[in-house]
Amino acid sequence: MATVDLILPQHRYVIEITPGSLSWLGERLRAVAAHQRAAIIVDETLTDTYGKTARLSLKEAGYAVTCTTMTSTERHKSLDTVRTLYDHLLLDRLERKSPVIALGGGVVGDVAGFVAATYLRGVPFVQCPTTLLAMVDASVGGKVGVNVPQGKNLIGAFHQPRLVLCDTDTLKSLPGRELRCGLAECVKHGVIRSPRKFEWLEKHLDNVLALDAKALVELVHWNVQIKAKVVMADEKEAGERAHLNFGHTFAHAIEAATSHLSSGDEDEASGAYHHGEAVSLGMVAATRLAVDAGQCPGEVLERLIALLDRIGLPTAATPGRLHEAAALIELMRMDKKVAGGRIRLVLPRELGKVTVTDEATDAQIAAAWKSLAG
Amino acid sequence: MATVDLILPQHRYVIEITPGSLSWLGERLRAVAAHQRAAIIVDETLTDTYGKTARLSLKEAGYAVTCTTMTSTERHKSLDTVRTLYDHLLLDRLERKSPVIALGGGVVGDVAGFVAATYLRGVPFVQCPTTLLAMVDASVGGKVGVNVPQGKNLIGAFHQPRLVLCDTDTLKSLPGRELRCGLAECVKHGVIRSPRKFEWLEKHLDNVLALDAKALVELVHWNVQIKAKVVMADEKEAGERAHLNFGHTFAHAIEAATSHLSSGDEDEASGAYHHGEAVSLGMVAATRLAVDAGQCPGEVLERLIALLDRIGLPTAATPGRLHEAAALIELMRMDKKVAGGRIRLVLPRELGKVTVTDEATDAQIAAAWKSLAG
Repeated sequence: MATVDLILPQHRYVIEITPGSLSWLGERLRAVAAHQRAAIIVDETLTDTYGKTARLSLKEAGYAVTCTTMTSTERHKSLDTVRTLYDHLLLDRLERKSPVIALGGGVVGDVAGFVAATYLRGVPFVQCPTTLLAMVDASVGGKVGVNVPQGKNLIGAFHQPRLVLCDTDTLKSLPGRELRCGLAECVKHGVIRSPRKFEWLEKHLDNVLALDAKALVELVHWNVQIKAKVVMADEKEAGERAHLNFGHTFAHAIEAATSHLSSGDEDEASGAYHHGEAVSLGMVAATRLAVDAGQCPGEVLERLIALLDRIGLPTAATPGRLHEAAALIELMRMDKKVAGGRIRLVLPRELGKVTVTDEATDAQIAAAWKSLAG
Repeated sequence: MATVDLILPQHRYVIEITPGSLSWLGERLRAVAAHQRAAIIVDETLTDTYGKTARLSLKEAGYAVTCTTMTSTERHKSLDTVRTLYDHLLLDRLERKSPVIALGGGVVGDVAGFVAATYLRGVPFVQCPTTLLAMVDASVGGKVGVNVPQGKNLIGAFHQPRLVLCDTDTLKSLPGRELRCGLAECVKHGVIRSPRKFEWLEKHLDNVLALDAKALVELVHWNVQIKAKVVMADEKEAGERAHLNFGHTFAHAIEAATSHLSSGDEDEASGAYHHGEAVSLGMVAATRLAVDAGQCPGEVLERLIALLDRIGLPTAATPGRLHEAAALIELMRMDKKVAGGRIRLVLPRELGKVTVTDEATDAQIAAAWKSLAG
């Protein structure tokens, strides 16, 4: 069993990374949020599998369980879904000490977390991520929220969980595209903090892609360690937590620009980029900007593109799939991290080291966008 | 100028109580939330009066100002209003460091505060309460939120303001009914914490009702002191902050039971009780329960009723206006402070001292309800 302790001024919790851990959810929950009733908010596609395991475990630990499902697409990461979930919790009279458990990917965690943050002014929250992306990124650090038509994650809160339980067995049933998307954030962690872990990924990628149990635990473990360390240094994103946005200012614009291409169920056939794919493109764009500005060795870009290619993530945009650079820059200005109308970018200096700048010119940013189109 | 410092583990702010202080809002804001843009969320009936003063002051201090209005009724204290306000902030591209200022009564403060707590995961917030109720209660302590059809304040957050500016001049244009409602919370503060202040109110009530400037500052000052002290001891309502709920478990049921009588604009002709009126009845009911249980001297009830009568607050329910006791008890169980299905009540022991209990029987509670009906 691998664990990471996350220690903040007012919160302290454990992230546990173990195959099969969902079956002892109830026991773990007793220790951090004992109550007679608990609510599970579960991805509708997981109700009969992991949902069942979780429910059973909670019942064995003495909880009365309210189980509600949600559709885990960006389109359903909405205030409407939040309202529906409030109604379920109110109907079953969940109280201030009743824990809310998110079981699913990042969308479920973000929405359930926002519900937990605002229901009765905040109730205990537990994350049980079932995707790589959610394990290494979304479920650690307390950021919760929903999308509005104007943009992603524009409404939200900071609500730290009481516990994060990463059952790495759940990754075995994850669609390949989702595994690749999660790996985009792992690559990001390597670039912003650790050349050693970037190398680990280059070396162990085949084991990870083959879903080797030991490799998966190790992968999630070091990624959670990096994410937790950044969050501990800067809970509310006043400073270095911004490093986690490497690739993301570009990515959010890509997602905003292509979201209308989504078929709604976000299947493989959809024309919209998934978050991890957008991040992959965003990291390439940001690194190319840094290299072109003479601030980063070209070798970093080469190794980055090579690794992303091996994973199967996009490193160039499909022709016609992205807007004109000017429109994308306008979308970047809508990002919630914009300060004083200036676009803030995280740029690599070398592997393991990044800086934050708002001094990139529109011309430089446009050139980076254009380079993505090949 | 009277001020109260509110000091919490992660927040510290000043509550300033002075006639005319709205005209230096901009200057004060600079010190706590400097930015190029600020948003005012103002009660629509105050736009051309205090709204104008506030806007002017902000502009003089160099802020670009987004001014949005809202209707300040309980019906508009809703997630729909919150969404509309999000849209305004997004349209004008308010950023993470742009302060949101609530200008109006408790409804405006609660809604604007919830918007500030959740827009871009939280932006700086300032309260400029213009009603007595908002000054002595709602604007201090960081509780923000909205109603849902199932009940009041069921959705919300804790979001401490950076500054609270009580311009007591605004009380001079307050409708009499609203002033009386605010006084209900002042009576409550006396009962739960200070026989001396209860006496102050008995002695200076006429000056207060005559809107004497000095009496108003003094009134708001001691009430904010009591409220701030309770909040400082228990920010998140784990313990003694619950004392502030004296009269409120009954009051919430009264409001829930009679809200359908509201004409929507909550004018004098409406059949619905206002919050302060419901609290007045609730304090009488709770005190009578305590007296009947032999836990509180009858004199407390007599002085309480006498003072509320002098203020002009209800101490008995108009026949036919309230539900049957059983239905009211059911509504009490919907209250968000319910734990384990038990109704928790704050009961006076003597003037200045209360205890929290969940041991009152349904029969005792029903008797208290019945006594209200005369």
